[in-house]
Amino acid sequence: MININRKIVLGSGSPRRRELLTMMGLEFEVIKSDIEEVVEEGLSPAEVVRSLALQKAEDIIQKVSNDALLITADTIVVCQEKIMGKPKDEQDAYDMLKFLSGKKQSIYTGMVIWDKLKDKKHEIVGESTIYMKVLTDKEILDYIKTGDPMDKAGAYGVQTEGAVFIEKIEGDFYNIVGLPISKLYDVLKEIES
Amino acid sequence: MININRKIVLGSGSPRRRELLTMMGLEFEVIKSDIEEVVEEGLSPAEVVRSLALQKAEDIIQKVSNDALLITADTIVVCQEKIMGKPKDEQDAYDMLKFLSGKKQSIYTGMVIWDKLKDKKHEIVGESTIYMKVLTDKEILDYIKTGDPMDKAGAYGVQTEGAVFIEKIEGDFYNIVGLPISKLYDVLKEIES
Repeated sequence: MININRKIVLGSGSPRRRELLTMMGLEFEVIKSDIEEVVEEGLSPAEVVRSLALQKAEDIIQKVSNDALLITADTIVVCQEKIMGKPKDEQDAYDMLKFLSGKKQSIYTGMVIWDKLKDKKHEIVGESTIYMKVLTDKEILDYIKTGDPMDKAGAYGVQTEGAVFIEKIEGDFYNIVGLPISKLYDVLKEIES
Repeated sequence: MININRKIVLGSGSPRRRELLTMMGLEFEVIKSDIEEVVEEGLSPAEVVRSLALQKAEDIIQKVSNDALLITADTIVVCQEKIMGKPKDEQDAYDMLKFLSGKKQSIYTGMVIWDKLKDKKHEIVGESTIYMKVLTDKEILDYIKTGDPMDKAGAYGVQTEGAVFIEKIEGDFYNIVGLPISKLYDVLKEIES
């Protein structure tokens, strides 16, 4: 539906972000960033995801052609001021899920859309809320066995088996999945106009 | 993750409902109902979807084995007291999207889980809210050209190109997709316990 005559580069290895761009009907290529993510102390959750999306973009922008549109993003889960990215191992996944069980939590996704042709950066931060059910230890352990938690911020997926743990959400669903496509669409419309 | 030693029958032709049961890790067979859906006058939206899910279930229950668990569902979109199912044709899809543009709307899904072994019916109605962007005529017409609106209540999808038209939601995302799997999971847990 969106007619964009630009080369789009997705700067993310996430299969979910790839699927979302495909769902939007976009053609794109993928270049992963291999920077070590560094987060300054004392940043707010919104500043953390903005900074991480920007670090990835700055790493990749030199590798793309001059007419490219580069899209990068970073997602974290925040609950009672605790910031959670992907779990390091199964124990870490268990600790995260045990902590998140029964709690309201915020999901932040920072997104950078870098128009290299115009040398213009669009920076967007989306926030959504999730209400998670109370999980039993058995549910958490069974879920970890599926392997699903390991590549996801907060150690759960909302488009996978983990979806049944979610009571309700408020905000943009795809911001939770990892790319706020509704806002991305608006920016692409603006770029094309 | 859910260990259910029962034969599950999904009484729906919707590919989205099939995908959701698969996502939950369930094995099931599909039997479609071919009843003509009849809605009494003067019912509330919640009563409409409960009645339609029940009509489908009553049609199919005789066709399944005695140990089966039958799942049926029906989804409608309600906006300013107007109830919308699937569009009849492209003009109808246009009228629906034109009407829904820029408006807050409610999505109701009625779900019946019929445990034939215990002869027990679990009836559930979920309600979620969607805030839709203001759509231009061009956007509506381009979207109709994709064919996506035609098999969906309210003439739009939230897991397809239509997702970019959604500003935000409140409630269970999968209730909007057509099957409140979070509640389904709770009922299945109760049945297995």
